[in-house]
Amino acid sequence: MKKMEQLYEGKAKRVFLTEDPEVVIVSYKDDATAFNGEKKGTISGKGVVNNRMTNHVFKMMEKEGIPTHLVEELNDRETAVKKVEIVPLEVIVRNVAAGSFSKRMGVEEGTELLCPILEFSYKNDELGDPFINDDYALALGLAEQEEIDTIRAYAKKVNEFLKGYFLDAGMKLIDFKIEFGRLPDGTIILADEVSPDTCRLWDVDTNEKLDKDRFRRDMGNVEEAYEEVFRRLGLL
Amino acid sequence: MKKMEQLYEGKAKRVFLTEDPEVVIVSYKDDATAFNGEKKGTISGKGVVNNRMTNHVFKMMEKEGIPTHLVEELNDRETAVKKVEIVPLEVIVRNVAAGSFSKRMGVEEGTELLCPILEFSYKNDELGDPFINDDYALALGLAEQEEIDTIRAYAKKVNEFLKGYFLDAGMKLIDFKIEFGRLPDGTIILADEVSPDTCRLWDVDTNEKLDKDRFRRDMGNVEEAYEEVFRRLGLL
Repeated sequence: MKKMEQLYEGKAKRVFLTEDPEVVIVSYKDDATAFNGEKKGTISGKGVVNNRMTNHVFKMMEKEGIPTHLVEELNDRETAVKKVEIVPLEVIVRNVAAGSFSKRMGVEEGTELLCPILEFSYKNDELGDPFINDDYALALGLAEQEEIDTIRAYAKKVNEFLKGYFLDAGMKLIDFKIEFGRLPDGTIILADEVSPDTCRLWDVDTNEKLDKDRFRRDMGNVEEAYEEVFRRLGLL
Repeated sequence: MKKMEQLYEGKAKRVFLTEDPEVVIVSYKDDATAFNGEKKGTISGKGVVNNRMTNHVFKMMEKEGIPTHLVEELNDRETAVKKVEIVPLEVIVRNVAAGSFSKRMGVEEGTELLCPILEFSYKNDELGDPFINDDYALALGLAEQEEIDTIRAYAKKVNEFLKGYFLDAGMKLIDFKIEFGRLPDGTIILADEVSPDTCRLWDVDTNEKLDKDRFRRDMGNVEEAYEEVFRRLGLL
């Protein structure tokens, strides 16, 4: 698999074309941003952690019956994935109150929710990724009802699986964000990443934060947290 | 029906107890507020318009099979209604982009939506009535799934009915907010009001605003707009 022309550079990843029009190569950077790009920095080694952790999780999700974009891990930072059209929805699942949810809803961070919350944001940097609901997605033509139903079912399954997976490694899955893509035939598949950039993970005993909140909130030991997650998952 | 002790004073209405523990009297004020109470004023005659228009609409909704809190109009400003526990959800239905929706979503005011949008806000002044979705309502214990399903079905029916009703009077129903209450036996009924305070109504030919936006946006002729709606609906 040979990297050709760069197709796109995002905040944390670069995407390259390959000889195969149906496959692109994702290259994970160490660049970190937060608050819609207002805060910028570097988390040394993050690209490796996020690339390998995402691929490991995606392989498990495939076994659970959820199709993903994964084709083949090429090296520590680069992976061949199916070229998709990203559905412009950030799919957020919350098990415990934290972050923007806690602020907006006046619920103390760490409060267990009566049931998991699934929510959508409209993936649009200019608008600041606004919170929307299913009707917004339909009324603005962002997705079809059938796609939303599929995405919702997959996201719930991902949550149930990942909660147990992280708990076995001594971590609580507080919340996470995933994205989905459309293949040319319309099939919805899990895309983007699952990593400490996109999941809030707390130590099950001490509630120590082992995720990007350490960067967002200037808590220090950011690299160490990413390494710790990597180690606990047996990926180091 | 005799007014007894005042139970509650809201921004636009007072509520009084009666001899009947299952009935309260709502008294509509001319006071107007906007932006979560930041802007304050008076719209002379508004209380009469909103009281009589709400009752007229609620009578029609009863005929359409939607139970309401209406018991009996007592006079121009006062109505006896069933005492309910208000479900803490502001139920908003949008047919055309306007107001906060247009700003948040970057969609020009006046743009017809592909399909109506139904959304919930958590009725909580301290938090500024934040936009939520069904999962939030469940996870925070604001309503049960069955209640949400009933509210959604009623709100859609109200929208379909009101769109035609206002169109017959030369007005487009852009969006509106309604609230629901629980009777002691758990029955969900339509409560609160349907008025130019809670509906965006535009002249069908000129798009002139005939609602509270004239107050919110200092457009002048506020009283005249309320009177005009009243007149067009044959209530004057």
